[in-house]
Amino acid sequence: MRTYLDHNATTPLRAEARAAMVAAMDVAGNPSSVHAEGRAAKMLVERARAQVAALVGCLPTQVVFTGSATEAAALAVAQKHRHGGVFAALPTEHDCLRVWSEVEMPSPIGRDGVPLAGLQKQLSDLAGDHSVERAALVAMSAANSETGILTHAGKVLGSVDGANGTAGYSVICDITQVAGKMPVVYDAATPSYAILSAHKLGGPKGIGALINFTREDPEPMLRGGGQEMGRRSGTENVIGIAGFGAAAEAASRDVAAGRWEEVAEHRDLLEQAVEAASKVTILVGKDAPRLPNTSCMITAGWKGETQVIQMDLSGFAISAGSACSSGKVRASAVLHAMGYDETEASSAIRVSLGLETTSEQVLRFADSWAAKLAKHGIRAA
Amino acid sequence: MRTYLDHNATTPLRAEARAAMVAAMDVAGNPSSVHAEGRAAKMLVERARAQVAALVGCLPTQVVFTGSATEAAALAVAQKHRHGGVFAALPTEHDCLRVWSEVEMPSPIGRDGVPLAGLQKQLSDLAGDHSVERAALVAMSAANSETGILTHAGKVLGSVDGANGTAGYSVICDITQVAGKMPVVYDAATPSYAILSAHKLGGPKGIGALINFTREDPEPMLRGGGQEMGRRSGTENVIGIAGFGAAAEAASRDVAAGRWEEVAEHRDLLEQAVEAASKVTILVGKDAPRLPNTSCMITAGWKGETQVIQMDLSGFAISAGSACSSGKVRASAVLHAMGYDETEASSAIRVSLGLETTSEQVLRFADSWAAKLAKHGIRAA
Repeated sequence: MRTYLDHNATTPLRAEARAAMVAAMDVAGNPSSVHAEGRAAKMLVERARAQVAALVGCLPTQVVFTGSATEAAALAVAQKHRHGGVFAALPTEHDCLRVWSEVEMPSPIGRDGVPLAGLQKQLSDLAGDHSVERAALVAMSAANSETGILTHAGKVLGSVDGANGTAGYSVICDITQVAGKMPVVYDAATPSYAILSAHKLGGPKGIGALINFTREDPEPMLRGGGQEMGRRSGTENVIGIAGFGAAAEAASRDVAAGRWEEVAEHRDLLEQAVEAASKVTILVGKDAPRLPNTSCMITAGWKGETQVIQMDLSGFAISAGSACSSGKVRASAVLHAMGYDETEASSAIRVSLGLETTSEQVLRFADSWAAKLAKHGIRAA
Repeated sequence: MRTYLDHNATTPLRAEARAAMVAAMDVAGNPSSVHAEGRAAKMLVERARAQVAALVGCLPTQVVFTGSATEAAALAVAQKHRHGGVFAALPTEHDCLRVWSEVEMPSPIGRDGVPLAGLQKQLSDLAGDHSVERAALVAMSAANSETGILTHAGKVLGSVDGANGTAGYSVICDITQVAGKMPVVYDAATPSYAILSAHKLGGPKGIGALINFTREDPEPMLRGGGQEMGRRSGTENVIGIAGFGAAAEAASRDVAAGRWEEVAEHRDLLEQAVEAASKVTILVGKDAPRLPNTSCMITAGWKGETQVIQMDLSGFAISAGSACSSGKVRASAVLHAMGYDETEASSAIRVSLGLETTSEQVLRFADSWAAKLAKHGIRAA
């Protein structure tokens, strides 16, 4: 009997998504074909586009389906020439954005998840280097995937300006972890672009979207047949898109119904049990605004990778850092940027709950984890 | 009762692919996660990689999964700096390759599908401009999607050299239409790259592959989590990939069993019926080596788009040109390049059969088409 507590890495397919995908399997046409079979496929894609738009708060025409949030990130970054020509990602961003960063940026938050002042100064310096209307394209996620801490871009960045502004920074907002867990609000800052992924909210893996809030179509990376209104060529992933749409609609409904409040209660229960078992374990950003489902725990000296393997053998799926980089044994770049030292940043696990996670499951996890901690020989009190 | 005769645009999901996809829906993990759930997802991806490799005749490590053949094309073209720095696509290539071409090339074949001599001279000229070891990266499909005519790259290009050569041209071979309909052989020319798509052989839409025959990993377009051995980041389309693999395996089996011979018989039956009904209709490349399932018919003066709409209303799904460009009313660039005039190139339809197409269906199509032809007022004899 396995217990899956790694929902930020990916979350099981929702029943609604599965049903939509199975139904889409019978729609044989190519959405680009003009005949009845093609039009039926096109309709599935357009219905999903409206469902995703409703989730993220945009017009359907602003949704560009991609093969992943990673592709959406690359597509957004490729637009930097329209935004000052320089791209900068905060050091707490996902690798798919950080990898393109041309400017070293300070963390927006400190050890406790509290906003730091340094970022605004750095951005002013950046603007000094590039005295153009749009100083730069800056990526900041709405919530961090490893810690769950909300970035509150507006408060952190100060007077950031978005698609319709006349000066300031353009923003790529990574809403991958927020979408489907909380209402998607863009805080004080309207971003120029948002990116997200279906599989974090109960859709299938391999389908994402770029949300384009600017008035210009993004210049495409993939060219050819002219799908997605010329913004992303390639025959559409009709089955995957249908699943994305259905998952988005179901996720919106669950957010509106407040179902994540119960998840937050379970997360708090987990953290109380961990605190009772270990006085040395740091619950990262515990008092900061966070996603309802995420707990990032540092037990200095007990490697995160070791914890993951030990808990896996005990029947629990968790992670150390983000899933993408979890194959590699290394310290969390996110925790490092926040001010944790090498030992601390290497000793973190992420436990992320889903809508179906029960209180019994999290308590069983805490028990099992505490037993391993005792064996590991760390003085827990 | 609809009759689907547009299998080159996309073909219905095979039962094997559907079963594999439904099974994959229960595998919740992220292939990058180290825990049991992650490893189970990874296994699905790697099994599919071996299945696709077996279909196309390469090592599993040479398969890079992408979101479409279009993405695979862009990824291959992005490697041009390793192959002389210049990319040239033949004018008969799919838009996803042609759009990147920097050099105007002549058609490899003439009106009848017979190889032309001009191409080799043009390539020599190109080599003269760039007197480097690898003169250029040249795209040529194994079979044309609109006409079904096989290109026989080796014969057309002469001494083309591939991944392991020391001089000559590097080739991107588009095997999208061949894979799953005929044994995939690379003729005299071993390409540096091949590209294909799952949905043309009974897999789902939205998943493709780049086959990398070179000894270097392709430089990635999508960066971040390092999936696909760093060659294409982004969480894998696990369900789609599982479907691709199962479809590839089933398609290989059907090719080996000679099931397409019967399809060719039905195609010939169709063409005989059309010839009997119309003396003015040109069957493009009828005497050239062709895909077993494709018939491209020009009835000068009867617009292809009109034929498509008329046949759609009569219950038949066919296309004019490739699906991607079929929304746009324009002459076929492929037929144009082959030497057909504007009227002829605008008056073509493509009828493409599938494994399940019956002789009764194609004869019904021919009857219905002939009746429309008569109404259209074209002198058919």
